[in-house]
Amino acid sequence: MSEPGIQEVKAVEEATTAASTNTPAPTGETPVAEGETPAGPTKGELKKRAKEAEKAKKAAERAAREEEERKKREAKESQDNAKQNYGKLPLHQSQERNGRKFLKFTELSEASVGQRVVFRARMHNSRAQGAKIVFLGFRQQTHTLQGVLVVSGEKDENQVSKQMLKFAQLIPSESIVLVEGIIKSAEVKSCTITNYEVGIHKLFTAVEVGDLPFSIDDASRAEADFERAENDENLQFSRVALATRLDSRVMDLRTPTNQAIFRIQSAVGQLFRDYLNSQGFIEIHSPKLQGAATESGASVFKVQYFNSTAFLAQSPQLAKQMAIAGDMERVYEIGPVFRAEDSNTHRHMTEFMGLDLEMAFEEHYHEVLEVLDEMLKNIFRGLKENYKHEIETIKKQFPHEDFLFLDETLKLPFKEGIKMLKEAGAKGSDGQELGELDDLSTENEKFLGRLVREKYHTDYFILDKFPLAIRPFYTMPDPTDETLSNSYDFFMRGEEILSGAQRVHDMDFLIERMKSVGIDPNSMQGYLDAFKLGAPPHAGGGIGLERVVMLFLKLGNIRRASLFPRDPKRLTP
Amino acid sequence: MSEPGIQEVKAVEEATTAASTNTPAPTGETPVAEGETPAGPTKGELKKRAKEAEKAKKAAERAAREEEERKKREAKESQDNAKQNYGKLPLHQSQERNGRKFLKFTELSEASVGQRVVFRARMHNSRAQGAKIVFLGFRQQTHTLQGVLVVSGEKDENQVSKQMLKFAQLIPSESIVLVEGIIKSAEVKSCTITNYEVGIHKLFTAVEVGDLPFSIDDASRAEADFERAENDENLQFSRVALATRLDSRVMDLRTPTNQAIFRIQSAVGQLFRDYLNSQGFIEIHSPKLQGAATESGASVFKVQYFNSTAFLAQSPQLAKQMAIAGDMERVYEIGPVFRAEDSNTHRHMTEFMGLDLEMAFEEHYHEVLEVLDEMLKNIFRGLKENYKHEIETIKKQFPHEDFLFLDETLKLPFKEGIKMLKEAGAKGSDGQELGELDDLSTENEKFLGRLVREKYHTDYFILDKFPLAIRPFYTMPDPTDETLSNSYDFFMRGEEILSGAQRVHDMDFLIERMKSVGIDPNSMQGYLDAFKLGAPPHAGGGIGLERVVMLFLKLGNIRRASLFPRDPKRLTP
Repeated sequence: MSEPGIQEVKAVEEATTAASTNTPAPTGETPVAEGETPAGPTKGELKKRAKEAEKAKKAAERAAREEEERKKREAKESQDNAKQNYGKLPLHQSQERNGRKFLKFTELSEASVGQRVVFRARMHNSRAQGAKIVFLGFRQQTHTLQGVLVVSGEKDENQVSKQMLKFAQLIPSESIVLVEGIIKSAEVKSCTITNYEVGIHKLFTAVEVGDLPFSIDDASRAEADFERAENDENLQFSRVALATRLDSRVMDLRTPTNQAIFRIQSAVGQLFRDYLNSQGFIEIHSPKLQGAATESGASVFKVQYFNSTAFLAQSPQLAKQMAIAGDMERVYEIGPVFRAEDSNTHRHMTEFMGLDLEMAFEEHYHEVLEVLDEMLKNIFRGLKENYKHEIETIKKQFPHEDFLFLDETLKLPFKEGIKMLKEAGAKGSDGQELGELDDLSTENEKFLGRLVREKYHTDYFILDKFPLAIRPFYTMPDPTDETLSNSYDFFMRGEEILSGAQRVHDMDFLIERMKSVGIDPNSMQGYLDAFKLGAPPHAGGGIGLERVVMLFLKLGNIRRASLFPRDPKRLTP
Repeated sequence: MSEPGIQEVKAVEEATTAASTNTPAPTGETPVAEGETPAGPTKGELKKRAKEAEKAKKAAERAAREEEERKKREAKESQDNAKQNYGKLPLHQSQERNGRKFLKFTELSEASVGQRVVFRARMHNSRAQGAKIVFLGFRQQTHTLQGVLVVSGEKDENQVSKQMLKFAQLIPSESIVLVEGIIKSAEVKSCTITNYEVGIHKLFTAVEVGDLPFSIDDASRAEADFERAENDENLQFSRVALATRLDSRVMDLRTPTNQAIFRIQSAVGQLFRDYLNSQGFIEIHSPKLQGAATESGASVFKVQYFNSTAFLAQSPQLAKQMAIAGDMERVYEIGPVFRAEDSNTHRHMTEFMGLDLEMAFEEHYHEVLEVLDEMLKNIFRGLKENYKHEIETIKKQFPHEDFLFLDETLKLPFKEGIKMLKEAGAKGSDGQELGELDDLSTENEKFLGRLVREKYHTDYFILDKFPLAIRPFYTMPDPTDETLSNSYDFFMRGEEILSGAQRVHDMDFLIERMKSVGIDPNSMQGYLDAFKLGAPPHAGGGIGLERVVMLFLKLGNIRRASLFPRDPKRLTP
């Protein structure tokens, strides 16, 4: 464990040493004897000649002296005592391990000032100031730190040569660099870290990068920047289209906004689980390969399964219910959900993450509705409390009003929702008067979201008691009003994020319900089998992870909340 | 919020009231006047007749009195003052909500003694003792509680009638019942809860169940029980085959063993995440629908994707690496992995849960190996500390030696493993001498597991530095020995549960590696694209969730560790 690895560079490329070799030679006067006359020289002439010869000699001597000095100077310069402090690292094959701690920018504090540190970062940008200073921007995820490289004359181990400066300037953006230097207090405007910078002593490229599809800066701009540019001749920004970003998603993911979005996405899953674990749930994993199409309705992807056909699960609905019939009491699943629907909207994908839960309840399905509600509020609170930095980072590119929710969630009967809409003048999608048992159009859902926000000051509420006719056959009817059902939707910013219900747990009644909506019970024997052995009363719901993220952060398009989105037209990367 | 729901039964079936209606009528003598003679009666004859008439009258009166008493007695019996205390509940449609707390058996303690409780449970079994007592076994997941129902003469609200006793005896096993009663101290042998029982006052069926494919008791037997039965004429147990169980998985899941297995499975996922979250990882979700087959090698399922073809991801390998190239630094994913391999073994499934992680490292891939190791030890410790009850429950059916692991995990160089095997006389699968660069057969892996357990007293160890030739092309070669690689496998009880490596992160070198193993780089442009933009040095690994569960608990077949297993021959339920 002798020297830190950064000093043990085995192959330093000297790409920048050619820079000083084109210096023109000094142009001392060297007299040329022109055409001589046959007559002998006069005394004055001789004297003159001697004088000139003396002069030429001195000039030659001077030139030689100058040439020698120039060579010395050049030799001195090309010697480059900073060679060991920069260059390209060899391929990282885990050659050695010295246990040196690498700095994370998030760890920087007053205590760091004066400390010598090593870190790895992306080369974000660089800017020269005169011939002897270069400012470099280093990036780690959502943070950028300014580095300063100053040519120094000292011949100590920290020497920075002109060659090193040139090397630094030529490092392509997005290359991964290994930096050693000293943290200093500073006032910095162009980086996210504004109170510190690093004085660079060593600078190596670990991974060099070629042409970029777009720059991180361009990909990070807010709409407001473009509006600003429209009114300012000196500003010119390129807009990176969503499709371009998704085509080069690896590049796109590096923007601070995306770094923050996917930390939020991860947090939503954790908060979902944390709450449910505290309520005695267990996590299950149900198969996505199904022998028969689950649920009727949504289209289903077919899979070639050896010599037969399988289907991709459109929801874990049946599996969750089977787990309940299997006495697991309270279960949740986080897994992919597949929908073979040719929907090309801002909020549909062919594959998304379902956060699903199912729960046996005791007296009333509202026990489940309340668990779902508390779980969601736990997510909202967790994000607000622990992800401020990420939310603020995202707001810079996608400005939005903070997500509003109440301590006591508004639970609106469906009929009440319709009433509010009617009073506000909403019509059905056919232009007709809204009926109490009509389904809500996407437009009316959004409208209702606005009305609720105005009246109750919340972006989050529950619609309960949906009409039976517009819910799936396995939905339990209301015990007193047979036109209604024990079912609910949850809304965020006027868009549905969760749909759920008490399920029919009695096989005979399930058959009756199937028949009443025209489904042949024989066609769903697998579903019925699960209830033949007895299932307790249960209810549940399913949430789209990406929708929650999109709506909480108001990203405007669900693809921005999916790592590698899939839609009818996109299967890569 | 007036009365507790259990008292508000609206439709009580009186299935048992018919029992006393067949009692034969009393056979009092009623004299019949036979053929009369024409001559007038003598005086003696008249006297005799009068006496007989008197006798007949008295007999008739007695008969009438007896008939009346019988009717009274019958009426009294059929009155059944316990009617309100038992019966079948109407379909649970969330009719009302009284906020009554239902008991979980796990909550029972000394403080419960003397308390009146309500609970829901499965009817596990029942056994009559004489005409007035029935013992009922109630089951909640892994616990059974004895209930005692005693016919009582008192006419108070807790009255238990003969009819109620009959009703209780006729409840089919596995029905869901709602029970109200008083907890008593007791010594119980036939239930898992041995120190309490419940004195039953009310008993309702919430969900009744028909024919069962097999009984929970049969499905819960250990191999030792069958061995015992072989030597004892009085014991006869039916063995429930794995296929039968899986066909009726809902039933099978109710065994205490399975209840415990899936809590352990859930715990493994939680412990995996908990450790990685504490190490700065974030959870990602990568698409299972792929535009091209990821990785070469294992066969892949084809999906009909609108007018084109998609493939089911065989691993999140590429997605994880892209996330690292996208600066996410440390990521993990828990998701389904699909393998279209026609393998019908105890440890292969066509769909299983992958616990995958990928991590940028600083100096050496052993940083990642150590994270993987600590993560696994965190799982083992968490299970041992917090899932004792579940492990003990499973041991009853699947006895096994406790899983051994060391505080400091054994890291064995691959060569060292081969040496141990050779010294113990192991041969290659071709019967030839084992070579230092040969792959390990499944048999030799198991053999090595036994040798390691003997020598180092551990069921868990790491093999490091696998020969390069037997690892995928994207594996980073060792920096000093080009026949070796920076790759590792982790073993539990002699079976591989994790495979991983440092990956080649340099595009040019990746192309070189592809060519050297005969892969056309153009055929994997998508893979290469991810590295064109620069990825830091990284390593990772993938774990099969079900394998960890199977091997930790020594279940013998991976299907036992999967909720609804999928193999080439099974797509349901």
